[in-house]
Amino acid sequence: MQLRDIAKVVKGSTYGRMTFVIRNIQPPDDAGIKDLTFLFNAHQTTKAGAVIAAFKVKGKNGIIVKDAKRSLYSLLQHLDKQRSRWGISPKAEIASDVRCPRRCRIDPFVVIEQGTGIGQGTVISAQSYVGEGVVIGRNVMIHPHVIIFPGTMIRDHVTIHSNTVIGKPGFGYIKGKRFRRIPHIGGVIINAFVEIGGNVAIDRATIGSTIIGEGTKIDNLVHIGHNVKIGKNCIIMGQVGIAGSARIGDRVTLCGQVGVSDHVRIGNNAVVYAKSAVFKSIPARRVYSGIPAREHRAVLRALGRLYREP
Amino acid sequence: MQLRDIAKVVKGSTYGRMTFVIRNIQPPDDAGIKDLTFLFNAHQTTKAGAVIAAFKVKGKNGIIVKDAKRSLYSLLQHLDKQRSRWGISPKAEIASDVRCPRRCRIDPFVVIEQGTGIGQGTVISAQSYVGEGVVIGRNVMIHPHVIIFPGTMIRDHVTIHSNTVIGKPGFGYIKGKRFRRIPHIGGVIINAFVEIGGNVAIDRATIGSTIIGEGTKIDNLVHIGHNVKIGKNCIIMGQVGIAGSARIGDRVTLCGQVGVSDHVRIGNNAVVYAKSAVFKSIPARRVYSGIPAREHRAVLRALGRLYREP
Amino acid sequence: MQLRDIAKVVKGSTYGRMTFVIRNIQPPDDAGIKDLTFLFNAHQTTKAGAVIAAFKVKGKNGIIVKDAKRSLYSLLQHLDKQRSRWGISPKAEIASDVRCPRRCRIDPFVVIEQGTGIGQGTVISAQSYVGEGVVIGRNVMIHPHVIIFPGTMIRDHVTIHSNTVIGKPGFGYIKGKRFRRIPHIGGVIINAFVEIGGNVAIDRATIGSTIIGEGTKIDNLVHIGHNVKIGKNCIIMGQVGIAGSARIGDRVTLCGQVGVSDHVRIGNNAVVYAKSAVFKSIPARRVYSGIPAREHRAVLRALGRLYREP
Repeated sequence: MQLRDIAKVVKGSTYGRMTFVIRNIQPPDDAGIKDLTFLFNAHQTTKAGAVIAAFKVKGKNGIIVKDAKRSLYSLLQHLDKQRSRWGISPKAEIASDVRCPRRCRIDPFVVIEQGTGIGQGTVISAQSYVGEGVVIGRNVMIHPHVIIFPGTMIRDHVTIHSNTVIGKPGFGYIKGKRFRRIPHIGGVIINAFVEIGGNVAIDRATIGSTIIGEGTKIDNLVHIGHNVKIGKNCIIMGQVGIAGSARIGDRVTLCGQVGVSDHVRIGNNAVVYAKSAVFKSIPARRVYSGIPAREHRAVLRALGRLYREP
Repeated sequence: MQLRDIAKVVKGSTYGRMTFVIRNIQPPDDAGIKDLTFLFNAHQTTKAGAVIAAFKVKGKNGIIVKDAKRSLYSLLQHLDKQRSRWGISPKAEIASDVRCPRRCRIDPFVVIEQGTGIGQGTVISAQSYVGEGVVIGRNVMIHPHVIIFPGTMIRDHVTIHSNTVIGKPGFGYIKGKRFRRIPHIGGVIINAFVEIGGNVAIDRATIGSTIIGEGTKIDNLVHIGHNVKIGKNCIIMGQVGIAGSARIGDRVTLCGQVGVSDHVRIGNNAVVYAKSAVFKSIPARRVYSGIPAREHRAVLRALGRLYREP
Repeated sequence: MQLRDIAKVVKGSTYGRMTFVIRNIQPPDDAGIKDLTFLFNAHQTTKAGAVIAAFKVKGKNGIIVKDAKRSLYSLLQHLDKQRSRWGISPKAEIASDVRCPRRCRIDPFVVIEQGTGIGQGTVISAQSYVGEGVVIGRNVMIHPHVIIFPGTMIRDHVTIHSNTVIGKPGFGYIKGKRFRRIPHIGGVIINAFVEIGGNVAIDRATIGSTIIGEGTKIDNLVHIGHNVKIGKNCIIMGQVGIAGSARIGDRVTLCGQVGVSDHVRIGNNAVVYAKSAVFKSIPARRVYSGIPAREHRAVLRALGRLYREP
C-alpha cells in the first residue's frame, strides 16, 4: 500500500513522497524506515519513514489529519474486515429443542443445553458451553471457551471473550457448624453493547439479577459478585473485583486491580484509581484513590506529609 | 405461589392478605408491588407487596419468622430442586480402564485419562479434563471446563466451578544462566465439602501435597501456590493469592484480594481484611489489615494520624 | 528405593544405614520416620528417617551433598520421566490445510483453524483452540484448554498452562457517545523457553506486537495488556497485572499482585515487591515497593515514621 492510498482512508493531505510504499504499521518506538506510524503529540520521536499526525514532521513522508487517534481508528477499521462465515458444526452438541436461526455460527465441540434461544447473526465459538434456558440476543459474539450458566440473558451486540464464566452461583454460605451453600435462583443480565474480557467471572444473583448496563466494557480477570449492578458505559479495567450487591452508577471508571466491598455504592461518573480499595460509598463525579479509598486530593496530601523526610 | 404456601415452607405466621400471589422473589431494592422480599433489619425499605422479616411491616402482607436469613435459605433450598440426571455421553473420551459407577454423569467432550477413579453420584460436566490417575470421590460436582491434573485426589461432596485448574506444576525454577523448571512430583488433596469457585488455580506440590482442608470455601480467581496448606472451614474470598508453602489454619477468613507470602503461617480463626498483604506470620484469632499487614487497630490508629490535616 | 540408590542420583556420600528404604519424599514438616527429606539449613528440624543436606544430621540416615537445592532438582528430574506419546486424535478438528509433523501430539476435542503451522515435538493437549494462521514452534507444550488467537507466534520450547488466553484483542476503545472498540490487527510473540501459567491473559497489540522475551516465566492469573513488551528471563509472579504498552526490561522481578500502569518503563534487573503499584517508570537495578511504588528504603522509612506511636 502506498501513502496516498492510506491518505484516502484517513481523509488527510500528504506531504513528502506520496508514492512511499508502506511495509507495516507500527507503534512509534517499533517502526523502522519502511514503516508507517502515528504520532499523537509533537514530542514523540520515531524512525518511521512515514507518519500520520495533526502536524507536519520534518524529513518524513506524511499525512496531516485533524485527529490522529481517530485516523488510527478509521484505518484499523478499514483493515480489519470481519469474515462472516455462517453455519452449524455437526460436531456441536445441541439439544433437540434449540432452534438456531439461519444466519448464525456454532463451532465444533460447543454444548448447548435445552430451552436455549439464539438470535440472528450470533456466533458461538468452539468449545463454549451454553446452559439450559439461556437467552442470547442478535449479533452476539461468544469467543471460544466461554461458559454461560442457566438464568443468564445476553442482549444484542454483546461480545464475550474466552474463558469467561457467566452465571455460576455466587459466594454465599450460611454459617453453622459448617458452611452450607445458599442456593442461587437469580440470574445475570448482560445488556446490549457490553464487552467482557477473558477469564472473567460474573456470578448469578441469589434472588433477582446481577446486571451489567448497556455499553459497559470489562477487561480481563475481573470478578463480579452476585447481585452486583453496574450502570451504563462504565470502564472496568483488568483484575478489578466487585463484591456482592455493590452498585456502580453510569459512566464510572474503575482502574486496574481496584476492589469494591459488598453493598457499597459508587455514583455516576466517579473515577477510582488503580489498586484502590473501596470500603465505603462514593458520591457521583468524585475521584478516589488509596486503601481505604478517599478523595484523591486528600490522599495526595497525606502521601506528601508521609514522604517528607524530617 | 401464594403467601400462605411460602409461610408453610419458612414456618412463619402470616399477617395481611395470606392469599397474596407472589410474582417473583426479589431483593428489597428491586422488588415491586407484586413481589416478595426479605428484610433483615427494620431500617430497610422496599416497594415489595409482601415481606418476610423478624418483625411486622406496616401496610404490607407479610410473614413473621424468627430469623429472616435462615428463612431465605430454607425457601431457596425448597425452590432449587437439583435434577438428578445420570448417564455417560457417548461423546466423552474415556480411557478404556476407567470404571464409571452406575450412578454418575459424564457429559459430552469430557476427556478422562487412564487410571482415574470416579465415585458414585459424581458429575463431570461438559468439556472438563481429568488427568491420569486422578481420584475423585462420591457426590462430587465438577462443573463445565474444569481441568484436573495427575496427582490430584478429590474427596466426597466437593464442588468445583468452571475454568478452574487443579494440579498444574507450581511456579518453581532453579536459577542459573537461565531459569530451569523444577519438576513437581507432589499432588493436591481437596478434602470433603470443599467448594472452589471459577477461574481458580491450585498448583500441585513439588514434593508432598498442596492441601485444602475439609469444608473450606474458595471464591473466584484465587491463586494457591504449590505446597500451600489450608485448614478446615476457611473462607477465601475473590482474587486472593497465596504463595508457595504458606500454611493457613482452621476457620481463617481471607477477604478479597488479600496476598499471602510464601512460607508464612496464619493461625486458627484469624481474619485478614480485604486488599492486605501478609508478609509475616499471623497468630491465631488476630484481625489484621494493611500493606504490610499489621493488627487492624494499629493500622486504624496510623491511618488516623496520617489523615489528620495539620 | 534405598538410600544408596538415591545417593547415586544426587552424587552424594551416605552415612547411617545406606540400605534404608524410602517410602516417600516429603517436605521437612510433613515427612515421617519412613520418608526422605531435604534440609536447606541447619536450623530446620524434621521427623524424616532420612535426610539430604550439605551437613550431617545427628541420629538420621543421610546423604551429604554440596548443594541440597540442586540435589533436590536432580532427583526430581530423575523421577519425573516425561512420557513421549505421539499421535493425532481422530476426535480433534483440524483444518484440512494444516500439516502436522510426524512427531507431535494433538489430543481429542482440539480445534486447529486453517493456515496454522506446528513444529516437531509439539503437544497440543485436549480441548485447546488454535486460531487461524497461528505459528507454533518445536517442542512446545500446550496444556489442556489453552486458547491461542490469530496473530500469535510461539517459538520453540515454550510451555503454556491450562485456561490461558493468548492474543485476544486488548482493552482499547474510542470514546464518543458510547465506547467503540478499536480493532486490533497486531499480534503476540512468545519467545523461546517462556513458560506461562494457568488462567493468564495476554492481549494482542493494536498495531505491532505484544512481546514476551526469551526465558521469561509467568505465574497464574496474570494479565498482560496490548503492546506490552517484557524482556528476557523475567519472573512475573501470580496475579500481576501489566497495562497496555508498558515496557519491562530483562531479568526484572515483579512479585505477586503487582500492578504496572500503561506506558510505564521498568529497567533491567529491577525488583518490585508484592502488591505494589508502579505508576511511574523505574530505573534499572532498583528495588521498589508500595502504592504508589517508590524506592523500597524510602517506603520502609516512611512506614517506620507512620507506625511510631506518639
